[in-house]
Amino acid sequence: MSDARNTIIIGSGPAGYSAAVYLARARLSPLVLAGEAWGGQLMLTTEVENYPGFIEGIMGPELMNRMRGQAKRFGSEILDRDVSKVDLSTQPFRVQIGEGSLAQEYRAKTILITTGARARMLELGEERLLGRGVSTCAVCDAAFFKDKVTFVVGGGDAAMEEILALTKHAREVTLIHRRDKLRASQIMQQRVLEENKDKVSVLWNTEVLEIKGDEKLEAIVVEDLKTKKRSTLPADGLFLAIGHLPVTDLFTGQLELDNKGYLMTGLNGLLHAPHASQKSQSKTRGSNARIDEGLWLEGYPTMTSAQGVFGAGDVVDFRYRQAVTAAGFGCMAALDIERFLTGSSQSW
Amino acid sequence: MSDARNTIIIGSGPAGYSAAVYLARARLSPLVLAGEAWGGQLMLTTEVENYPGFIEGIMGPELMNRMRGQAKRFGSEILDRDVSKVDLSTQPFRVQIGEGSLAQEYRAKTILITTGARARMLELGEERLLGRGVSTCAVCDAAFFKDKVTFVVGGGDAAMEEILALTKHAREVTLIHRRDKLRASQIMQQRVLEENKDKVSVLWNTEVLEIKGDEKLEAIVVEDLKTKKRSTLPADGLFLAIGHLPVTDLFTGQLELDNKGYLMTGLNGLLHAPHASQKSQSKTRGSNARIDEGLWLEGYPTMTSAQGVFGAGDVVDFRYRQAVTAAGFGCMAALDIERFLTGSSQSW
Repeated sequence: MSDARNTIIIGSGPAGYSAAVYLARARLSPLVLAGEAWGGQLMLTTEVENYPGFIEGIMGPELMNRMRGQAKRFGSEILDRDVSKVDLSTQPFRVQIGEGSLAQEYRAKTILITTGARARMLELGEERLLGRGVSTCAVCDAAFFKDKVTFVVGGGDAAMEEILALTKHAREVTLIHRRDKLRASQIMQQRVLEENKDKVSVLWNTEVLEIKGDEKLEAIVVEDLKTKKRSTLPADGLFLAIGHLPVTDLFTGQLELDNKGYLMTGLNGLLHAPHASQKSQSKTRGSNARIDEGLWLEGYPTMTSAQGVFGAGDVVDFRYRQAVTAAGFGCMAALDIERFLTGSSQSW
Repeated sequence: MSDARNTIIIGSGPAGYSAAVYLARARLSPLVLAGEAWGGQLMLTTEVENYPGFIEGIMGPELMNRMRGQAKRFGSEILDRDVSKVDLSTQPFRVQIGEGSLAQEYRAKTILITTGARARMLELGEERLLGRGVSTCAVCDAAFFKDKVTFVVGGGDAAMEEILALTKHAREVTLIHRRDKLRASQIMQQRVLEENKDKVSVLWNTEVLEIKGDEKLEAIVVEDLKTKKRSTLPADGLFLAIGHLPVTDLFTGQLELDNKGYLMTGLNGLLHAPHASQKSQSKTRGSNARIDEGLWLEGYPTMTSAQGVFGAGDVVDFRYRQAVTAAGFGCMAALDIERFLTGSSQSW
């Protein structure tokens, strides 16, 4: 393995770049395969008010530019290429970019996966208005909608939490749901629909058909699925709470993923506990338990089911999904990798 | 409990202020009891290069000023007072500042403990040179000692890791140890003392007696404990790796602490696993298991052994201890508290 790199980081959100800062400062010369669309979900946002350290907030892309610059400053090698294939079956691990005769292969003793997650979208072209009225995170963005007219699409507890966050700021919040009942828990439904009924209303059996607005969101067109009646509703904010998709296709069959496709590490065994129990996924819980006993106790909270392969950020963390938590997890993974490479694991 | 506050944060390092940013933005009006010496360990540092988001680095106190300003901006109430007493036995919890007739009491539905940890010092007045040659974190500061003459005081794996971090930058690293053998693991001793013997040497049976330097560290005076011979050694860097003391005196007997005094939460059950197993503390491991089953599975990774009391940052995390990990854990605690207060826990 002497000609293999110490570590390759796949992905370039806050987790990937934070890890790169730490690994580069430790002189482990990380290679960051940042992807053609580098920078992660924050590149799609506008103002970020809750990343600690910026009193007046910072624009999402600017924050990512800074983290990238910081990773480079300490000597990270950054390639804006997508990974086409990985082989994690033997060490050194192999990571390929490009296809066919243009393919290039990199080999490394350790791999850090920070490929993130994507919010599910309605696929009505609303991506163009992300950060301009359309949001996938009320915890992040509700405060920007003071006294505004807002809509939430979804029906689970995540949607209920989005609504609760919005009720603290918005003038009104309308939940749009395709069916005539919610899958959210009773207690959350009660809080949202009864205790907040001055602000919250529901459009049952309703689907969004169209998103209007060029510079910013102006209105949505919805259809009542029973009556087929369509309406155009002026809207300042549209919050999507229809789930996230972790970016783990490359790793299927090579690493343990949970039932939603999130990368399993010691840490997300913890994060996922209630998630898994709710679904009573005995298989996932079994894997979980194995990871507990095996990897956690070896002292690598960020290690996946493969020795030497680590994961951090939203690809692992379905729960908190904040820039600062991803950055923190990236740092943890970097320190775990450093310890793994120096072999001090057994003796913490 | 209607006249109790939603939450009180005790402590004001990156974990405390990050949590305050999130809780204030969620309109939960946190009260931060920041302490008379507010700001945590970063107030004692100079340049911080590894907090993601600052390409050219930022001074530790400036970073804390910014986090504090950000917490205030969203409406956190911050009092620079030390907590004299807490009562966590019944809800609402009670937190007292001042003593006797000047005592004031605050009540809250939830408490977040972010009181941090202190590095053990030699007690030779070396605090005055922290960030000016004296450091308690090689991961953070080794890169500032390129081609410098450095010393490490300690004898465990932590000290070995400090030395390894320093060998990547410093010209020479001398370990100072009071006894004639180390308690560090064999594998780490070998890496440090054999594989790096061009750079690393050891002063056995030696103690530091004096720290010289006004504006910055200039030299140390050491004594050979066997021969009683004293020497003055020019020094650019002195790294202390003689342990940390979590600040948990206030909570003894009220919350579960581990055998080193760290606050137990679901999360540090994970972080502590090898730590606990190494010491084979069956009591701690038993508590740990209980926290697993009870609190982790309820979905509050940052909750302590008392329902409604949470912990984050270095008071919990003996392992990573970085500004960005503390900030990340603070954010996680804030989101857990928000969920706890809205009662959506059962239904994640």
